[in-house]
Amino acid sequence: MKIESVDFFYLSMPSVLDIGDGSQDALLVRIRAGGLEGWGECEASPLTSIASYVCPMSHSACKPLKYSVEGKALNTVRDIRRISNSIHANSFDLLQADHTLSGIDIALWDLLGKKMGQPVYKLLGYQKAFPKIPYASQLFGGNPEETFKKAKSARMDGFNAIKFGWGVFGRGNIENDIAHLEAAREGAGHDSLLMIDAGTVWENHFNAAKKRLVALKKIRAFWLEEPFGNLSVGAYKNLSASSPKISLAGGEGCNNYTQAKLMIEHAGLSYIQIDAGRIGGITAAMQIADLAAKSGISYVNHTFTSHLALSASLQPFVGKEKDILCEYPIEPKQLAKDITQTKIVPDKNGYLHIPENPGLGISIDKNTIKKYLVELEIKVSGQKIYYTPDI
Amino acid sequence: MKIESVDFFYLSMPSVLDIGDGSQDALLVRIRAGGLEGWGECEASPLTSIASYVCPMSHSACKPLKYSVEGKALNTVRDIRRISNSIHANSFDLLQADHTLSGIDIALWDLLGKKMGQPVYKLLGYQKAFPKIPYASQLFGGNPEETFKKAKSARMDGFNAIKFGWGVFGRGNIENDIAHLEAAREGAGHDSLLMIDAGTVWENHFNAAKKRLVALKKIRAFWLEEPFGNLSVGAYKNLSASSPKISLAGGEGCNNYTQAKLMIEHAGLSYIQIDAGRIGGITAAMQIADLAAKSGISYVNHTFTSHLALSASLQPFVGKEKDILCEYPIEPKQLAKDITQTKIVPDKNGYLHIPENPGLGISIDKNTIKKYLVELEIKVSGQKIYYTPDI
Repeated sequence: MKIESVDFFYLSMPSVLDIGDGSQDALLVRIRAGGLEGWGECEASPLTSIASYVCPMSHSACKPLKYSVEGKALNTVRDIRRISNSIHANSFDLLQADHTLSGIDIALWDLLGKKMGQPVYKLLGYQKAFPKIPYASQLFGGNPEETFKKAKSARMDGFNAIKFGWGVFGRGNIENDIAHLEAAREGAGHDSLLMIDAGTVWENHFNAAKKRLVALKKIRAFWLEEPFGNLSVGAYKNLSASSPKISLAGGEGCNNYTQAKLMIEHAGLSYIQIDAGRIGGITAAMQIADLAAKSGISYVNHTFTSHLALSASLQPFVGKEKDILCEYPIEPKQLAKDITQTKIVPDKNGYLHIPENPGLGISIDKNTIKKYLVELEIKVSGQKIYYTPDI
Repeated sequence: MKIESVDFFYLSMPSVLDIGDGSQDALLVRIRAGGLEGWGECEASPLTSIASYVCPMSHSACKPLKYSVEGKALNTVRDIRRISNSIHANSFDLLQADHTLSGIDIALWDLLGKKMGQPVYKLLGYQKAFPKIPYASQLFGGNPEETFKKAKSARMDGFNAIKFGWGVFGRGNIENDIAHLEAAREGAGHDSLLMIDAGTVWENHFNAAKKRLVALKKIRAFWLEEPFGNLSVGAYKNLSASSPKISLAGGEGCNNYTQAKLMIEHAGLSYIQIDAGRIGGITAAMQIADLAAKSGISYVNHTFTSHLALSASLQPFVGKEKDILCEYPIEPKQLAKDITQTKIVPDKNGYLHIPENPGLGISIDKNTIKKYLVELEIKVSGQKIYYTPDI
């Protein structure tokens, strides 16, 4: 079959708050071919990503993404890899390209899975999907009391692993951070895994991060995530060798395989965290999961949005038995909840299972898309080159 | 003074060809404050970059660039650094941000230089601008005969250093590459510096590059540039240690300081090549020039477009006496030539001097801008959030 259409849908909550919550808007991608449709999601700025899909060519290495997708053949896994490579070759000077590719690549895998009647993970070569331990992923509370309550509530909901991130953490004095850390541990109970996500707050300032290690050790933080900005491998490496020893996690800021490889090889990470909606889709994520396994580093998804994004981010490592943890957003905005009719929820023992239906195994709720849809129109030289398509 | 307006102008040749020539379109940035205006240029997809400037906020780390610029104070060099840091903090999940920041940052330096009556390099802390040896930068010919003629012509025009890149090189069989290399050397004469730019053609395939080393040595290539994709540091490092030894150059694909630092520290480069229009502007480029000097690596500008971009890319290292080479595009499209009334041309001894007038020392030709202007309009939810401003 040939790719007949690639459509982008920009969805948003009525108001978007200035907080570290990426579920407040969404960019969905629908690809049609052979009477079927596949869906993907970019974890990216919707307008900017759409612009990169439709923009006029600047030169041979700065082509719009549509150049490498529309009308192309889609019959085998190799076709998806070919499209991914083609986008890299034709658009490597278009910085936004990897974020836009991500949603396209995910939709292509969904579509091919539907055509072949197989879940995506089987197309990736896995025989079996292993259940994962979901960690309840949420923002720190506004004060320690709120953090305590959020931790307790997640624990009551049956989560054996809980993560707090962003918010005030690392932005005020260390005493405030310690109060949040202790509140988190108290609320989560002593027998749970507790992860802490600094959301790149210390940029590349090793000392600011190092100062928190004792407190992190005291609450038995399972890992410290993103103390530094993407690719600040020197600061990561130094911190990984510091005492007391805390495992480091990072990688969600990577937007291609090459960057993730650098993080795996040079940052001293114990966990590499990949968002299929940013890294270039399932194709790139799978390559990284394989490299991580070879390198003795655990692979974890990064997901803070819908269950479409969750399924996409689970596929690349669901067949790897050793990678037992997965991120599970527990406080997404209503928009992110409403996107899918299918919900991926932990079983009664607290384990998460990937859908076994063809493709990503996720049904999209088209009424939701209509409800949250943001109309866009882009004109170049008086000609409309993009407008929000019909659903 | 306060930043009053930030305007983007998308210029284009009437037709854009599928070749590795980035001078076929341009994105200019004009910033006004205190009755003055500064100009910058992004080496980036115009529509996508503009979209990143005006897009609605997605979350706290994915804000449009305008959030960090409009209405901000601009009185000292520290104010420019503050704006640059602020964009990184507010927009680090907006992938296109660094490309857009580049033109903004350049315009801010131009504006501040005009206000203080100083060329930008003096604001950067340099006492003196050193003349540079410009290398004539051009694409390979379509066949060896054409490459020969282009080399000869550049030599006749007085250039003692000549670079060929992109085009067919590395895309066909090795015999064809050798024929081009030998033609280039023959045309350039035996006493010139001859650089070869592979334009990332071998992606990360070490062996494809290694196979060409003997031929490169034979023609005494001064350096081999960008054999691999941005950040493919392992392949670079291996090639740098291979025999016969050829100096490696790279870095134009980097879009921030952190990436350039990785290339400097891990890729085995002899030359780091930075485009101020991509790296985040003059602020980031200056940081990299300092790091390169400390690391014993030569800094070279990457410039393939207008003399506005050329001046911006020269400022960060013009005060470093040891970095003697600079890239000088000799076949830009008419658009790139027409953008500036000021032309930066080599003196009779073949040396290039940076303009000594305040700011970037470049006068923009406003009639040109009108002539090449591409009208853009972006609507979100029925509201125009961007349209091409008046000049």
